[in-house]
Amino acid sequence: MASCTVHTAPYSFHCGSISRPAAKAFSLGFHQKHQQFIFFSSRRRRAVVCSAVEKTVVIGLAADSGCGKSTFMRRLTSVFGGAAEPPKGGNPDSNTLISDTTTVICLDDYHSLDRTGRKEKGVTALDPRANDFDLMYEQVKAIKDGVAVEKPIYNHVTGLLDPPELIKPPKILVIEGLHPMYDSRVRDLLDFSIYLDISNEVKFAWKIQRDMAERGHSLESIKASIEARKPDFDAYIDPQKQYADAVIEVLPTQLIPDDDEGKVLRVRLIMKEGVKRFAPIYLFDEGSTISWIPCGRKLTCSYPGIKFFYGPETYFSNEVSVLEMDGKFDRLDELIYMESHLSNLSTKFYGEVTQQMLKHSDFPGSNNGTGLFQTIIGLKIRDLYEQIVAERAAATAAAAKV
Amino acid sequence: MASCTVHTAPYSFHCGSISRPAAKAFSLGFHQKHQQFIFFSSRRRRAVVCSAVEKTVVIGLAADSGCGKSTFMRRLTSVFGGAAEPPKGGNPDSNTLISDTTTVICLDDYHSLDRTGRKEKGVTALDPRANDFDLMYEQVKAIKDGVAVEKPIYNHVTGLLDPPELIKPPKILVIEGLHPMYDSRVRDLLDFSIYLDISNEVKFAWKIQRDMAERGHSLESIKASIEARKPDFDAYIDPQKQYADAVIEVLPTQLIPDDDEGKVLRVRLIMKEGVKRFAPIYLFDEGSTISWIPCGRKLTCSYPGIKFFYGPETYFSNEVSVLEMDGKFDRLDELIYMESHLSNLSTKFYGEVTQQMLKHSDFPGSNNGTGLFQTIIGLKIRDLYEQIVAERAAATAAAAKV
Repeated sequence: MASCTVHTAPYSFHCGSISRPAAKAFSLGFHQKHQQFIFFSSRRRRAVVCSAVEKTVVIGLAADSGCGKSTFMRRLTSVFGGAAEPPKGGNPDSNTLISDTTTVICLDDYHSLDRTGRKEKGVTALDPRANDFDLMYEQVKAIKDGVAVEKPIYNHVTGLLDPPELIKPPKILVIEGLHPMYDSRVRDLLDFSIYLDISNEVKFAWKIQRDMAERGHSLESIKASIEARKPDFDAYIDPQKQYADAVIEVLPTQLIPDDDEGKVLRVRLIMKEGVKRFAPIYLFDEGSTISWIPCGRKLTCSYPGIKFFYGPETYFSNEVSVLEMDGKFDRLDELIYMESHLSNLSTKFYGEVTQQMLKHSDFPGSNNGTGLFQTIIGLKIRDLYEQIVAERAAATAAAAKV
Repeated sequence: MASCTVHTAPYSFHCGSISRPAAKAFSLGFHQKHQQFIFFSSRRRRAVVCSAVEKTVVIGLAADSGCGKSTFMRRLTSVFGGAAEPPKGGNPDSNTLISDTTTVICLDDYHSLDRTGRKEKGVTALDPRANDFDLMYEQVKAIKDGVAVEKPIYNHVTGLLDPPELIKPPKILVIEGLHPMYDSRVRDLLDFSIYLDISNEVKFAWKIQRDMAERGHSLESIKASIEARKPDFDAYIDPQKQYADAVIEVLPTQLIPDDDEGKVLRVRLIMKEGVKRFAPIYLFDEGSTISWIPCGRKLTCSYPGIKFFYGPETYFSNEVSVLEMDGKFDRLDELIYMESHLSNLSTKFYGEVTQQMLKHSDFPGSNNGTGLFQTIIGLKIRDLYEQIVAERAAATAAAAKV
């Protein structure tokens, strides 16, 4: 049986011919369920069966280490209904997480230098010279085209490059790490991109929480490590946010004067306008500028309350819409109240955002804007994925008519 | 034919008996159209016809002179569909305005001292001693009960008390002037009360406009007259605002730093909570605090733009809702855009506020919050009137069943 791949941009069809007697088992024409169409070859000796190739949707998530990427990924996976697990029977130090719909790979796996190599050359992991962007591009492109790859593993425990692991094309591939938008070739493969932008004050508070309380590092060593990373971070990581379709900015609260505890956060969701398959969410009235303190006559909140802001802004010369939440939720009824006033949420039923947040109330950030906006972005990615699937189905149907 | 008035609070019925032969022309029972009910007397010799007495709805409007009361009245009358005219064939200096539905009387007509008398006693017109509150109470009460009165006329041209004019009970009586809420007996007769509160800066700018440009007064004399009035104004007029169901506050803009031109205004509509038959209007979400700059992606406005504010506040220990508009409208599409986001407007169709504003685009304040809030209060008064009429109809129907 001969086979070929037909590219009818933006979709591909994989076609093979079968003998006419075998084709009797099929009926001719378009088969919605299997996204297949069948027709006879020109000499009518054989039947041709074409199936749409399910191209993987690729999402990029950029952020510094320890900035809540894993929580974000757990929220995203949950929106699709499954739990993400490391690959079964593989390297126990694999950075990959797989669920029914999504595969999340960590871009640290494309480090070209291991810990010793970086030390020898005097470069940090943030430095492009410590990363193999050619391989990153080739492998992400291969997966997007439906081809499995042998991806390297960077072992965070040993600091060594371990033998590769097999990554099969999933429905949605998330590439998360320091450089998903650094290389323009990789960037062009992204169907959607997100940048988690944690302000220095908050980053410091979080690092202290994690590295000091959980890992026993000293305050000085944490400060020194942040300072040491800063030049490379500013040079190679931070500039990527200009390319992101959505940026989640995490800042200290403005509700408590001179707050430095970092327990109450002001979180801003910056959404680029004009992005295909992404309609920015809005509060009350699209395109105008609104500040909203929902706590009042109908909803009572404890100190320091909650304040929302929404409005158009310019971000790196791009027109964006910004939704901001300062403060934290006390109870469930607060969140459903907010949800009812937000539009373009891409939920499948009223209250889905609140339901998702409740389901993972133990995740960090569940009572503030980080959890809320991560959940919302998860819903927007699901919506984007479903739009692509629907477009593919329409394209297959159209191709069958030709 | 004997007659009597039956009081079944809060409504009154005027009943008369007619002979049974005459009653043949009527059918027994309740007549919705005429708000009448007919029954037989105990000895069944006569039929009794009872009609609901249309008690006049009384509205109080307090404000200093030259503060836009007459424009307000023209807007209010227009909401009811008619134009207000002075009484036909009467004193050409009458202060009264009559339309199909409303009669507006000026409380200056209850001055007990004329201009010379005030000068002799050294009191201003603002001083309660220059006003006859007993007569004001008696006459407003009489009109409310459906009885015509001979109301005095204070002649603003001559400064004298002219012979009285006949005021018949209208559907709606508006008493406007300096003291509609000063005397507690008069206050208790009001079905709704409004206070126009013009800040000193704006009052000064308006006085200059009117008295200097139109009447040829000097800047010094205007300043002196404002200063001279201030103590009595603060003592007798200003305190009435605590009793008002709605206050319209007119302040200088906050959109232009240090503006003293008074051409752009910040206008606040303060609406008391819990007032019978008056549901405060709100922006987007009832009971929360919102600031809204509608000018943006969908609506472009010229400098300095428009800013709305809405939220719960406390005003003289009363719980109130405040709606604020700073700035001015450039064009019609701006106003309909705002209208679509305001709730509880008591309009009869979508766009009625905008239509009313357009109809009187030549009135002062038509491009800012004074015109907008006067129009809205006009609609709320119409709604209040219609609620009273509907309750009266229901009471008549209920009385007929007894």
